[in-house]
Amino acid sequence: MFLDENFLLSTPTAQKLYRSYAAEQPIIDYHCHLSAKEIYENKPFENITRLWLGSDHYKWRLMRSFGIDERYITGEATDKEKFFKWVQAVQTAIGNPLYHWSCLELKNYFGFDRTLCAKEAESIWALCNEKLAQADFTPRGLMERSRVEVICTTDDPADDLQWHQKLADSDFAVKVLPSFRPDRALAIEKEDYLDYLARLGAVESFAKLKAVLAQRLDFFVSLGCILSDHGMAAVPYAPASEAEIESIFAARLKGKLPSEKECAQFKTALLLFLGKEYRKRGMVMQLHFGVMRDISARVYRALGADAGVDAIGAQVSAEDLAAFLGDLDSTAELPKTILYSLNPNDNAMIDSIIGAFQTGEAKGKIQHGSAWWFNDHYEGMRAHLTALAAQGHLATFVGMLTDSRSFLSYARHEYFRRILCGLIGEWVESGAYPAQEELLAGIVRGICYENAKAYFEF
Amino acid sequence: MFLDENFLLSTPTAQKLYRSYAAEQPIIDYHCHLSAKEIYENKPFENITRLWLGSDHYKWRLMRSFGIDERYITGEATDKEKFFKWVQAVQTAIGNPLYHWSCLELKNYFGFDRTLCAKEAESIWALCNEKLAQADFTPRGLMERSRVEVICTTDDPADDLQWHQKLADSDFAVKVLPSFRPDRALAIEKEDYLDYLARLGAVESFAKLKAVLAQRLDFFVSLGCILSDHGMAAVPYAPASEAEIESIFAARLKGKLPSEKECAQFKTALLLFLGKEYRKRGMVMQLHFGVMRDISARVYRALGADAGVDAIGAQVSAEDLAAFLGDLDSTAELPKTILYSLNPNDNAMIDSIIGAFQTGEAKGKIQHGSAWWFNDHYEGMRAHLTALAAQGHLATFVGMLTDSRSFLSYARHEYFRRILCGLIGEWVESGAYPAQEELLAGIVRGICYENAKAYFEF
Amino acid sequence: MFLDENFLLSTPTAQKLYRSYAAEQPIIDYHCHLSAKEIYENKPFENITRLWLGSDHYKWRLMRSFGIDERYITGEATDKEKFFKWVQAVQTAIGNPLYHWSCLELKNYFGFDRTLCAKEAESIWALCNEKLAQADFTPRGLMERSRVEVICTTDDPADDLQWHQKLADSDFAVKVLPSFRPDRALAIEKEDYLDYLARLGAVESFAKLKAVLAQRLDFFVSLGCILSDHGMAAVPYAPASEAEIESIFAARLKGKLPSEKECAQFKTALLLFLGKEYRKRGMVMQLHFGVMRDISARVYRALGADAGVDAIGAQVSAEDLAAFLGDLDSTAELPKTILYSLNPNDNAMIDSIIGAFQTGEAKGKIQHGSAWWFNDHYEGMRAHLTALAAQGHLATFVGMLTDSRSFLSYARHEYFRRILCGLIGEWVESGAYPAQEELLAGIVRGICYENAKAYFEF
Repeated sequence: MFLDENFLLSTPTAQKLYRSYAAEQPIIDYHCHLSAKEIYENKPFENITRLWLGSDHYKWRLMRSFGIDERYITGEATDKEKFFKWVQAVQTAIGNPLYHWSCLELKNYFGFDRTLCAKEAESIWALCNEKLAQADFTPRGLMERSRVEVICTTDDPADDLQWHQKLADSDFAVKVLPSFRPDRALAIEKEDYLDYLARLGAVESFAKLKAVLAQRLDFFVSLGCILSDHGMAAVPYAPASEAEIESIFAARLKGKLPSEKECAQFKTALLLFLGKEYRKRGMVMQLHFGVMRDISARVYRALGADAGVDAIGAQVSAEDLAAFLGDLDSTAELPKTILYSLNPNDNAMIDSIIGAFQTGEAKGKIQHGSAWWFNDHYEGMRAHLTALAAQGHLATFVGMLTDSRSFLSYARHEYFRRILCGLIGEWVESGAYPAQEELLAGIVRGICYENAKAYFEF
Repeated sequence: MFLDENFLLSTPTAQKLYRSYAAEQPIIDYHCHLSAKEIYENKPFENITRLWLGSDHYKWRLMRSFGIDERYITGEATDKEKFFKWVQAVQTAIGNPLYHWSCLELKNYFGFDRTLCAKEAESIWALCNEKLAQADFTPRGLMERSRVEVICTTDDPADDLQWHQKLADSDFAVKVLPSFRPDRALAIEKEDYLDYLARLGAVESFAKLKAVLAQRLDFFVSLGCILSDHGMAAVPYAPASEAEIESIFAARLKGKLPSEKECAQFKTALLLFLGKEYRKRGMVMQLHFGVMRDISARVYRALGADAGVDAIGAQVSAEDLAAFLGDLDSTAELPKTILYSLNPNDNAMIDSIIGAFQTGEAKGKIQHGSAWWFNDHYEGMRAHLTALAAQGHLATFVGMLTDSRSFLSYARHEYFRRILCGLIGEWVESGAYPAQEELLAGIVRGICYENAKAYFEF
Repeated sequence: MFLDENFLLSTPTAQKLYRSYAAEQPIIDYHCHLSAKEIYENKPFENITRLWLGSDHYKWRLMRSFGIDERYITGEATDKEKFFKWVQAVQTAIGNPLYHWSCLELKNYFGFDRTLCAKEAESIWALCNEKLAQADFTPRGLMERSRVEVICTTDDPADDLQWHQKLADSDFAVKVLPSFRPDRALAIEKEDYLDYLARLGAVESFAKLKAVLAQRLDFFVSLGCILSDHGMAAVPYAPASEAEIESIFAARLKGKLPSEKECAQFKTALLLFLGKEYRKRGMVMQLHFGVMRDISARVYRALGADAGVDAIGAQVSAEDLAAFLGDLDSTAELPKTILYSLNPNDNAMIDSIIGAFQTGEAKGKIQHGSAWWFNDHYEGMRAHLTALAAQGHLATFVGMLTDSRSFLSYARHEYFRRILCGLIGEWVESGAYPAQEELLAGIVRGICYENAKAYFEF
């Protein structure tokens, strides 16, 4: 039944696996967008709208799709009006993960277990706000009650990581580690690139930029950083000589924007450099690609980035991706790597490419990251898991991450674990894998927690 | 059981939803290729071969795939011979929608409910022809017994719409509205383009062409036109100045064919112009893309277009599609739009793109049209509905259309409704959505009928 | 239950169809990579590692994915150590076809029916090696006990086919026919191309090369060859004049490598020539595309080709594929053709393209080959069958092939037949096709055996 203890667990095997081996595992959320500052300051939330709708552009999209006026989304309506409009939009969002996430969050954090629908909006509003007034409904409280062990935030190389430092020095039991996301250092085509270089202190040469980034990496690592992250429309692969890159960089310093080809050459060179640096430090490289950002200029002008007007971009070039990884692999300098494409058509291709770069260095050294963003739903996760299992070794998968800005999103780990156990249960009960509890327990515990712990060496 | 009252309705919830909220809804067929002239003239059909096989290139393909000689498909064999060959080909076409459509049509219109197989060919032939001799088995009769409320045909801007006018003046209860399909006005690369311009009376300039099309639009609207339609291999996006377009157009008038780039520029400019005109008039823009037409030159030479030798083309460019819609959106001139790709790999990408352009103007202002042509089958419709639900708001979907040339194709609305209710029933009974009849009834009624009525403002 | 008599046959209909119409059919394995020499010599296998792991790069990939050191894969570890590591890697490979294949092979050939897991490694090692010491566990013995009727190997045009000749003259009951795979004759961009031309005796001109290949074709046909095969990254279509091709060829003879465009022109011309030659001889053309080979240069340097570092490449160009087939079709010179793409996103597009080139010459004249290589698994086969059924005529499909280098791979025919019957059973019992045993029996027998027999005219 919807949202009961067997939610998404359609077989006895699924129910057994979930309850015995998945539900109780702690959470390692190795990629998210939480603010270390907010965690450190630990301020309470004013009301459920602030917590739920304040910056959740997934929800904004659904409201717009339902024809709700912008006034009630990002506009001047009251928090309560916005909340009521949101409930109106979500109540019939059948098949959409926002419906599931919202219901799970209401149940797990607020104890609401009736139907999420317009008739209940008033009572949900009251219930949530009452709870949020309690002392343990702060950022830290929510993380603790979710049994979070580690989170890895997403940070710019220029960041001073003062809030991470303060958290490390505090008595907060959850590890809050920085991740190194040097997108701005790669964005040579952007208007504000020189400002950013100045901020980094890297305005002399490409060699200097690399040296500075390596220093920043060391600093990040000193605060427990184990992952890097890159967001990109496409994975570049355009080899060029060191001299060519210096020349492109020098021209950019003088204000000359690079051509499309030069841009790809610069990014390729810097990414290859960084990949090798990650490996030297035993770090994991994450690549997120296949995205088109801010495709509604109208909304971007009004609201800026992360306003719900991004979309799935073209498939990644199989040739470029293979060549990029192959370049690093050729000299045995490929770090542990996690690939995420926003385009679900890339699934099988990515799974076949990672299979070609696996080595004895780690179980699942090259990973196909969990179904990301527009794919982070029931069907998307099953498609990801099924394709990975068919072509790779599912039992080595490092599992779920939230990629979220919200302190309630840990419910997505439960959602993932239920879907995982549901799928494995179906396989076992349809006779596609033997009903051997010991083997199954190892697979489930591994994907929910243990693989990540070993892979990231937490 | 096959074709019984619970056909494709595998759960009690599906059966309940279908019978209570889907089956009885009238039909709005907002995109089809029926002939207003045939409807007005209302001539009876000579035999089932004429009605079924006369111009149905879907069936021709299946017969060729089964190795049937062209003589029995489009050649000189008798109507009865052709019918027998068709039955031979279709009887084992397991998993093909033509099998389902044919069986539904035989049952719904002719009362045949045994197995469609070679042994029954003689009896089906006799039964159908006996029925077709009855007075109410004419085009209008078939539409009326299908409970059709509105259809929108597909018409060239140069058409005088005399048959639509006559139908409007007649006592025929079904609304037969024209749609504006200016493909020929965009086809600047075609040999006969100047002839077409002459027919339109638009041989002076691009400005004149636009003015003429705007006048034709007004005329179409005066006869109830609410939709436009565009068929294209790919969605173009190549911005150019007004002067450049005039120059490309002027050269074409002198006989000079445009380059590929100029062609894209011309089409982009004209489509953007038309998009804005549609919006001014409150019209809905349909874009059909991802098609390769007439890929067997041998068959095209013998039979002309629409002969069963078309195919799925490349995926649409995510960038071009986003940029084209974004251009209109940027000035708030994007009309209500329905996107249809023939390439099913476009599903998730389209769903994510439409999500970025939704506004408070309408529920589901930008739509992902129902699974089209080579995707118009059980799996294709489920894939479309599931992807749309996961990324958009399924409950705002305007639902099914036949895109058909046949008066029996209304059975496809039943097919769609059964698949929709079957899918929703599975979701509810597997615990993925609460069993709340009121919410479910609203979703089902909306998708089957009410959403289209509101969206098109019929 | 896993691996019992109803393995993958979830419905009574599936069980009935499999047992009555699929299980007992002989095997036509119309595309494989077995060695005619090995079959002729018929030497016993030293141990299960030699038979299972000696050259099976599918298994190597899985071991690397599981983090096993190369020493235990292709390195200096003992055969027994390698076997134990393999069992360790495969035991939790849930959802991977290697798990199913391995279990089926252990059961069918060695009588092992407990769980494939590390605890059983010692007993499996002993059991298999004991069996392999028996007289009838040789290549021929394994083929005979698999009820193989015909196999078609994959051979270079320059091959003298002496082992095929010897087998034809022997008393071995299984037909071992050569297939014509002229990849090296097309590989004008390769370093060793001139050596290969010299070996063929075709160093004068393109015309001479064509003449030589036609002679080799006649020779192959004289030994029962009925299929050709081409492996390619992408299907080329770049038309050029005969003079242009001669000029590209002449330059290559002088050591000048062709440009990318010239390369495509040369390949197009030679493939079109060969296609017509195939048709003249009543042969079937196979095209395998969508592959990236040897993407880890590191592994390629160490182990050469076929080392488990290949991957799925870009989707085929719909335009090029349609144009290539259309060119041959235009003059009615298109042979029977089987298309295989390694990229599963091509499924629907291929199915729609083949539908446009079907004619009365044969049932399913143009075929979409069974799910290939990285798609040869449960989900991949169902996706292939479902898409083919929805757009084409599944009942004309020529069915399974192993594409394998191993004498145990006939278990994959059983795997395919179970999946096929499982799928049809689901369709029938969910009411998507009538429960008409006679029609179903014809479909199943056809796909498992009879269609191939008729299509290849064995």
